[in-house]
Amino acid sequence: MRETLRLQPVRRRSRPVNVRGVIIGGGAPVSVQSMTNTDTSDTRATLAQIRELQAAGCDIVRVSIPDRKGARAFAEIRKETDMPLVADIHFNFRLAIAAIEAGADKIRINPGNIGPAEHVKAIAEVAIDRGVPIRVGVNSGSVQPQIVESSSNMAEALAKSALGSVRMLESLGARDLVLSVKAASVRETLEAYRTLARSTDYPLHLGLTEAGTALAGTVKSSIAVGSLLEEGIGDTIRISLAADPCEEVRVGHVVLRALGLRERGIDLIACPTCSRCGVDLIPLAEAVERELGAIAAPLSVAVMGCVVNGPGEARAADLGIAAEKGGGVLFVGGEVVGRLREEELLSALVFEAKRLAAEWRPGTVGLGREAMRTPECVVHE
Amino acid sequence: MRETLRLQPVRRRSRPVNVRGVIIGGGAPVSVQSMTNTDTSDTRATLAQIRELQAAGCDIVRVSIPDRKGARAFAEIRKETDMPLVADIHFNFRLAIAAIEAGADKIRINPGNIGPAEHVKAIAEVAIDRGVPIRVGVNSGSVQPQIVESSSNMAEALAKSALGSVRMLESLGARDLVLSVKAASVRETLEAYRTLARSTDYPLHLGLTEAGTALAGTVKSSIAVGSLLEEGIGDTIRISLAADPCEEVRVGHVVLRALGLRERGIDLIACPTCSRCGVDLIPLAEAVERELGAIAAPLSVAVMGCVVNGPGEARAADLGIAAEKGGGVLFVGGEVVGRLREEELLSALVFEAKRLAAEWRPGTVGLGREAMRTPECVVHE
Repeated sequence: MRETLRLQPVRRRSRPVNVRGVIIGGGAPVSVQSMTNTDTSDTRATLAQIRELQAAGCDIVRVSIPDRKGARAFAEIRKETDMPLVADIHFNFRLAIAAIEAGADKIRINPGNIGPAEHVKAIAEVAIDRGVPIRVGVNSGSVQPQIVESSSNMAEALAKSALGSVRMLESLGARDLVLSVKAASVRETLEAYRTLARSTDYPLHLGLTEAGTALAGTVKSSIAVGSLLEEGIGDTIRISLAADPCEEVRVGHVVLRALGLRERGIDLIACPTCSRCGVDLIPLAEAVERELGAIAAPLSVAVMGCVVNGPGEARAADLGIAAEKGGGVLFVGGEVVGRLREEELLSALVFEAKRLAAEWRPGTVGLGREAMRTPECVVHE
Repeated sequence: MRETLRLQPVRRRSRPVNVRGVIIGGGAPVSVQSMTNTDTSDTRATLAQIRELQAAGCDIVRVSIPDRKGARAFAEIRKETDMPLVADIHFNFRLAIAAIEAGADKIRINPGNIGPAEHVKAIAEVAIDRGVPIRVGVNSGSVQPQIVESSSNMAEALAKSALGSVRMLESLGARDLVLSVKAASVRETLEAYRTLARSTDYPLHLGLTEAGTALAGTVKSSIAVGSLLEEGIGDTIRISLAADPCEEVRVGHVVLRALGLRERGIDLIACPTCSRCGVDLIPLAEAVERELGAIAAPLSVAVMGCVVNGPGEARAADLGIAAEKGGGVLFVGGEVVGRLREEELLSALVFEAKRLAAEWRPGTVGLGREAMRTPECVVHE
């Protein structure tokens, strides 16, 4: 058996769109987005959150611009960071134009609430003129009522709304478009994106809308975004959670890593424990996850409680332990390197992980913010 | 638009297997399993955990039997609960026989570690004689080495191992079989289950092995189990987490609800908040989730921060608020029922949810432990 065989999704072909050096589509690694939830006009708080998001591995940050004051603050924020910034606009086309003029790297508009076609045209003209991509971001909560009426279900309405906006923007000469069709329902979201994937070659921004709290939102987003990525659909993702935005980024990276699409940080393989478990494993696994949370190197670490599956998993990982009564066997690179007492396990795993991480040489992307491997890299390595 | 259209997966046809009244397969609602992680021979602790799992919505509980002492304890536990119990056996076929004789409702064996074929036969004979179903539970960490050698990848090895055991058990006359093929990798797991789904009509128990801590395990399991269920594959699920087993049950129900397969408890729709948010929404959403955690009635509750998507989502939910500066609009059954101050929002949502839950009349399944709607019910309502 070729032990290293990776079963990665074959990705849908899409056009590349450049957002300040981060490419969305065109076979580029799937980027991870999030959105600030500070008061945008509090530039200090917003910049601080942008920096936290950057440190957590966020590739592109969206900032909402609710009013003139927000637009002025956005111009200040733009000067203070080189993170790719997307301006999120609802209702008011003048704010969209102000955001583009302030240096937005992309704007997101929702055709359901931007008003008459002339307003969309006014935005498009400025965006095309300045080479700023537009995301057409349709949400189930605010899709145009006349489209909802004429559709047999919400998935169809979402796709129709997005494709209608695409035709309109194309007629104005726009080509740098990214599309999203988010529902709160997983199945509606899946069907809407599948329709888009069949109908256009624009890159797709995946996500659910109003996904929920950390637990429910993580589950629903993982299913929706994960299923689509596994089908090869999706070029950039945002996991919406009613939680700290950095949590959205962490979940996003776990989704991408789970599918072999991108690897950043520790892949912790841990068993759920049962009566065979010889050590206090859950606190150990949690401590390992916590202590290694800042590592960007893609390392698999197995924390296993017994001799049934333990040795197999620990051997297959970059690093791991298979516990036995009161201690465990340490594996590094598939080899047994020692037998440790329970109280030594955490420090040994942390020490070895940091050592392996220091040896690892990152590939970079975009502005070099972040270590990543693309599926292509993995195949050729 | 038919607003209530549900897009549920069309499920693969599988044979029904009866586990103490809970049907796995045959179109029955997807059941949620977990596993105790107490020392099995501590019967008091194990029974306490079984009761906690039952209260959390677990349909079937697995208990590992590592030794003779565990088998004796299992017999005691069996007498004290009518929860469907699965005995988990590794290595020792005599323990499997002891567990069947002690009243196990199903046994789980791993062909990779049960030893020579005569041992599997000895188990099968007793199981068939007593009408006890067998789960053939193959894991990537312990699949037979000779099968791994002769396979081109782990997904193939997992499916081969399971199908080989099926043929052997069928030759002995066994028909009440449930199959699982769990890898720690999402893609390997997906491919292995897809192969089984094409090759047999036995019901499938879905899960990943060694999925990881609460966060990583929830993401990986949601993608794997969610993708398969969305394809119509899967009859019973276990979300393996290195965490409290009750958490596995909670995540399992969120996965099923997200796909419209089963509805238990509150479906909380919450927005991730942005600078438009008029109230302190994340703590409010978390408090609503916490206060309504014990409700079994399937209610959707929207907690939305602004007027962009808020009214649409709040109107579509059974109950919801769309916040505005310092307060919010309360929706019940799609109608505006009042405008509240921020400090009134939590108590109003909790009051209305409890009122709606009290009006709701549960459908039941199995031993009537739990409220659920099946897709069929939803369609006909």
